[in-house]
Amino acid sequence: MAPQMAEWDQKEVFPVETMRKAAQLGFGAVYVRSDVGGSELSRLDASIIFEALATGCTSTTAYISIHNMCVWMIDSFGNEEQRHRFCPPLCSMEKFASYCLTEPGSGSDAASLMTSAKRQGDYYILNGSKAFISGGGESDIYVVMCRTGGPGPKGISCLVIEKGTPGLSFGKKEKKVGWNSQPTRAVILEDCAVPVANRIGNEGQGFLIAMKGLNGGRINVASCSLGAAHASIMLARDHLSVRKQFGEPLANNQYLQFKLADMATRLVASRLMIRSAAVALQEEREDAVAFCSMAKLFTTDECFAICNQALQMHGGYGYLKDYAVQQYMRDSRVHQILEDEETEKTG
Amino acid sequence: MAPQMAEWDQKEVFPVETMRKAAQLGFGAVYVRSDVGGSELSRLDASIIFEALATGCTSTTAYISIHNMCVWMIDSFGNEEQRHRFCPPLCSMEKFASYCLTEPGSGSDAASLMTSAKRQGDYYILNGSKAFISGGGESDIYVVMCRTGGPGPKGISCLVIEKGTPGLSFGKKEKKVGWNSQPTRAVILEDCAVPVANRIGNEGQGFLIAMKGLNGGRINVASCSLGAAHASIMLARDHLSVRKQFGEPLANNQYLQFKLADMATRLVASRLMIRSAAVALQEEREDAVAFCSMAKLFTTDECFAICNQALQMHGGYGYLKDYAVQQYMRDSRVHQILEDEETEKTG
Amino acid sequence: MAPQMAEWDQKEVFPVETMRKAAQLGFGAVYVRSDVGGSELSRLDASIIFEALATGCTSTTAYISIHNMCVWMIDSFGNEEQRHRFCPPLCSMEKFASYCLTEPGSGSDAASLMTSAKRQGDYYILNGSKAFISGGGESDIYVVMCRTGGPGPKGISCLVIEKGTPGLSFGKKEKKVGWNSQPTRAVILEDCAVPVANRIGNEGQGFLIAMKGLNGGRINVASCSLGAAHASIMLARDHLSVRKQFGEPLANNQYLQFKLADMATRLVASRLMIRSAAVALQEEREDAVAFCSMAKLFTTDECFAICNQALQMHGGYGYLKDYAVQQYMRDSRVHQILEDEETEKTG
Amino acid sequence: MAPQMAEWDQKEVFPVETMRKAAQLGFGAVYVRSDVGGSELSRLDASIIFEALATGCTSTTAYISIHNMCVWMIDSFGNEEQRHRFCPPLCSMEKFASYCLTEPGSGSDAASLMTSAKRQGDYYILNGSKAFISGGGESDIYVVMCRTGGPGPKGISCLVIEKGTPGLSFGKKEKKVGWNSQPTRAVILEDCAVPVANRIGNEGQGFLIAMKGLNGGRINVASCSLGAAHASIMLARDHLSVRKQFGEPLANNQYLQFKLADMATRLVASRLMIRSAAVALQEEREDAVAFCSMAKLFTTDECFAICNQALQMHGGYGYLKDYAVQQYMRDSRVHQILEDEETEKTG
Repeated sequence: MAPQMAEWDQKEVFPVETMRKAAQLGFGAVYVRSDVGGSELSRLDASIIFEALATGCTSTTAYISIHNMCVWMIDSFGNEEQRHRFCPPLCSMEKFASYCLTEPGSGSDAASLMTSAKRQGDYYILNGSKAFISGGGESDIYVVMCRTGGPGPKGISCLVIEKGTPGLSFGKKEKKVGWNSQPTRAVILEDCAVPVANRIGNEGQGFLIAMKGLNGGRINVASCSLGAAHASIMLARDHLSVRKQFGEPLANNQYLQFKLADMATRLVASRLMIRSAAVALQEEREDAVAFCSMAKLFTTDECFAICNQALQMHGGYGYLKDYAVQQYMRDSRVHQILEDEETEKTG
Repeated sequence: MAPQMAEWDQKEVFPVETMRKAAQLGFGAVYVRSDVGGSELSRLDASIIFEALATGCTSTTAYISIHNMCVWMIDSFGNEEQRHRFCPPLCSMEKFASYCLTEPGSGSDAASLMTSAKRQGDYYILNGSKAFISGGGESDIYVVMCRTGGPGPKGISCLVIEKGTPGLSFGKKEKKVGWNSQPTRAVILEDCAVPVANRIGNEGQGFLIAMKGLNGGRINVASCSLGAAHASIMLARDHLSVRKQFGEPLANNQYLQFKLADMATRLVASRLMIRSAAVALQEEREDAVAFCSMAKLFTTDECFAICNQALQMHGGYGYLKDYAVQQYMRDSRVHQILEDEETEKTG
Repeated sequence: MAPQMAEWDQKEVFPVETMRKAAQLGFGAVYVRSDVGGSELSRLDASIIFEALATGCTSTTAYISIHNMCVWMIDSFGNEEQRHRFCPPLCSMEKFASYCLTEPGSGSDAASLMTSAKRQGDYYILNGSKAFISGGGESDIYVVMCRTGGPGPKGISCLVIEKGTPGLSFGKKEKKVGWNSQPTRAVILEDCAVPVANRIGNEGQGFLIAMKGLNGGRINVASCSLGAAHASIMLARDHLSVRKQFGEPLANNQYLQFKLADMATRLVASRLMIRSAAVALQEEREDAVAFCSMAKLFTTDECFAICNQALQMHGGYGYLKDYAVQQYMRDSRVHQILEDEETEKTG
Repeated sequence: MAPQMAEWDQKEVFPVETMRKAAQLGFGAVYVRSDVGGSELSRLDASIIFEALATGCTSTTAYISIHNMCVWMIDSFGNEEQRHRFCPPLCSMEKFASYCLTEPGSGSDAASLMTSAKRQGDYYILNGSKAFISGGGESDIYVVMCRTGGPGPKGISCLVIEKGTPGLSFGKKEKKVGWNSQPTRAVILEDCAVPVANRIGNEGQGFLIAMKGLNGGRINVASCSLGAAHASIMLARDHLSVRKQFGEPLANNQYLQFKLADMATRLVASRLMIRSAAVALQEEREDAVAFCSMAKLFTTDECFAICNQALQMHGGYGYLKDYAVQQYMRDSRVHQILEDEETEKTG
């Protein structure tokens, strides 16, 4: 992906074909069961894979990781019919999925979401809107949290809505600082009728499903930050060894050497945090949720700082779009924001 | 400027008419003598003005401040003929000026610059190139440092080159993380003949002139960072008082209150540094150069951190180009890079 | 004081005679009116003086600054009889004063203090205790906040209690990390009868007086931090120029040079904050209280970090009591704690 | 140890009997082979043990860890006769050992050490001095690096010197900021005759042995920092839940909750770094040396910051020697200094 990441960023390309190739390698559903087309690997494997992919294009990998989270939610909480109906085309990335939790009004306060789903025969009639939806408008499958019951987390259910459903529309494509290879739009629901057969899990189980998804989502997005930081350190190291000042390479500058060593140290610490949290999640350890939140916060902060410092080491070149380091910085910036507030609550 | 800053950023508009209006208010040449059209104010005044303007558009103000630096160099080191020939249309911003020091090879190591200027009768014949030139391609006047003598700082002279001079051409317009309302291009000199009458100061005085210009330049660009940080804090404060979480405004969140107070504190400290350095420069105090470097480094780092933190306080909205805070962050990012290496040397 | 600071620290000497010499130079009551023996200088003068003294002994200077605050409270809020009765021996430091606000239970939450003062004829009968009293047990004059009325800040009054008053006793001398040249003890009040004539200001005015005192107290203690940081930088610079590694002085190490420059920059920023806050307080500007709190927090944090970094630059020597830098670190550590919580409330 | 740590600190007690009890549990030689009395556990076990012990007394545990390093050096590089002669009483802590590398002049620049050892028949005659020796004056066995050959690292050998050897004497006991339960003295060698039979390894192998020892030493001392930080977080948490402000426990204060969560996160990251480095060292992985240095720097810095922040959370109480948190801060401070410069070289 690396040769194309700048173009995808500047032209805002959603690289459908490239992602389908990644899916052929099994990256469309890394930790989904194999009977529906998943790779059935561990969370630890997923972290290693997303880190590696993110060195090629952080934004695209972050979207792939969200897609993975959605497929996993259907695989884990859906019934057999749903698993076999929805998962195969998602595993191959023939279809793309989006996760729809956040709302414009409440944002982070997930439990107070307002999108209503009123039962009418075999359908739920949905009204409301969802904000900041990665893949919004392009995806085929929307995993939507909505209120089927009373206030609070126990009134929330999880529905799958397919693109083309009447009453499902999208806001304008947002202009963003980064993450430009994935479209972001609001998802708007106006008297949108969704079959009850598309409900994942029981009524009232939606909040639980959403939070379980996010635990892995935190590991995934932080793994993307690891990839961005790793690539940025490599770029900075190369730049310092090429650029000269006062007749010798910048790499001989002791101050910059120490900075680079410090960046490498912080990357290693971040990677250990994420890998350990991935194992905790896989093993369903009691402290897994707290650990995932902790590791996500630490890693996305440290890795953004690493990318930003690597940009500084490039001097003026770091500010130009011809140099990849600035894109790693811009793309990884949003990882600090994502789920930040959910983290605060559950962490 | 505030209503247009997003458009100038996204469409990469160099807002010529708006800058000319600013020049009518005296902002084209704040600390240039009045007999050639300058406002003849102090460095302290300039800092206050650039901070205020930068709340409207940081990128545009940063260019205006570079233009100011160029006019000041001609006003301070040029002879009477040059002052009256070049300054009036620059003071009114009928014409625009660019500062040309950095080269692609040596970058920061200004004293080793390679652009050669060989005397041939009443002309210098210039060959070489300059990198990262703000206003490059759009400006009418280029204040260029070139080598008329032997190696080292004493072989450098300062020439004014007018747009349209044969042999003067420009590289492609650079794509950048920010600073999009000012075009950045390489300036290329190929057998470019420049009249000796356009030499500012004596032969060999160029490095001194360039460095004197930068002292004020540091104050100016750091003042632009102050403006960006100030505006970002205001935006964050407003956002926190509007956005609700768990039924009350985020502004009631104690953690965010403390963060905001800390940001305000760091802004005040930065402002005091820059204002004091401006006074030191105005009074030509012995420690002025060291003080300007120190204040520039401190302020551009702290102010970027403030903008970046304000972005975080916006949550997902902070990442969208519809919200101004991300532009302050992107625009002020480059201020940390500018003259960084010159600072290390002279600081 | 510098030659004795280590001895005072290790033997826990309260250097009475040295302080009286300082008082002869006018440092016992810097910003107290001259008709009662004060130096009648400004807050800005006081800041400069305390910074300079603190380079000699931070702990002793911090006590002197607290003493100054007490005398100022009596000078500013006492009546003429009280001013002439209490101030002259305090200005000359014939007598020493202590400020008694904090209580063991409530600590920082000054407005909820519990020490009761019940009116009985011409006396108040006091019961309660005060914690962390600098000078406690050694001082002659205790400026005590106590509750003469109902709950909340408006029930608080300010009384002067003289050593020897029956019912006034002291806790054990505390062992501390630093500040060892000033004794710290609890002050215990058991049916302690204090003349109504010793009440400073009106009933119910005590909280106001206490807070006004602290505004200046913040400037003073932060000025002591400036002195400690300044001295630490000097020591680190000297150490680096003497110590050799790999055949050349550590001072040639670029990483350490940058660190030292950064420390100097942060000291300058801190000093500008405190000096500006002192002027704001002197001029009774509307924002003076917020500014004093802000400047105190910033300065005591930055200056401790400077002292601590200077210690690091000493290598193993920095950890030995034969080297002064560790004492500046230990002494300035408490300045971050002092009034921290009051600051939060009023800031 | 916890009940006595304050007394050992304030009275500067070297707790011989307590350490011998620890040795009965196998802590005198954790990763030494069992045929000479060692526990033959792994580096990972050692890290866990030292972390746990350090919660009881950081300073004493740090000394025990240095003792362990010395015994390991004899066990690993000594011949069978030496192993059986020296190790058993060290494993039981009947005897104590000290590591003697640093010199007053060169300090960190180990390869340039000046202590000379001239061969004379079956003896080496040593002259020189060693600085900052933990256990100096109290230990029975000194593992000394000295120069038997030419300049540079290859001229260095490792000798064991027993207390009582003529020509071996000690400097004054140093007064320190912390680490007060272990005596620190210079070790002075004046025509000190040491049997050739006490040379560990070959001539010229000393530098290698010293550096191999330090790899484990870094893990050990950083593990002590982990213990100090862990204990400090527990103390802060308890303090916050007990202390009240404005009528509710400080633990309800959101700002402090976030701070505490951040401290816990940084402790977890540090622990993962040290544990992973211990495993790398155990497995003699190629990157083990770099990893140990990296992990040591990260951990000792982060853990000191945690202790220092925990002190701050105690308010004024944190500054009093009656509260343990300040001792963890003082004791762990030196861990940032130890081997800092060796780290830079080999790291």
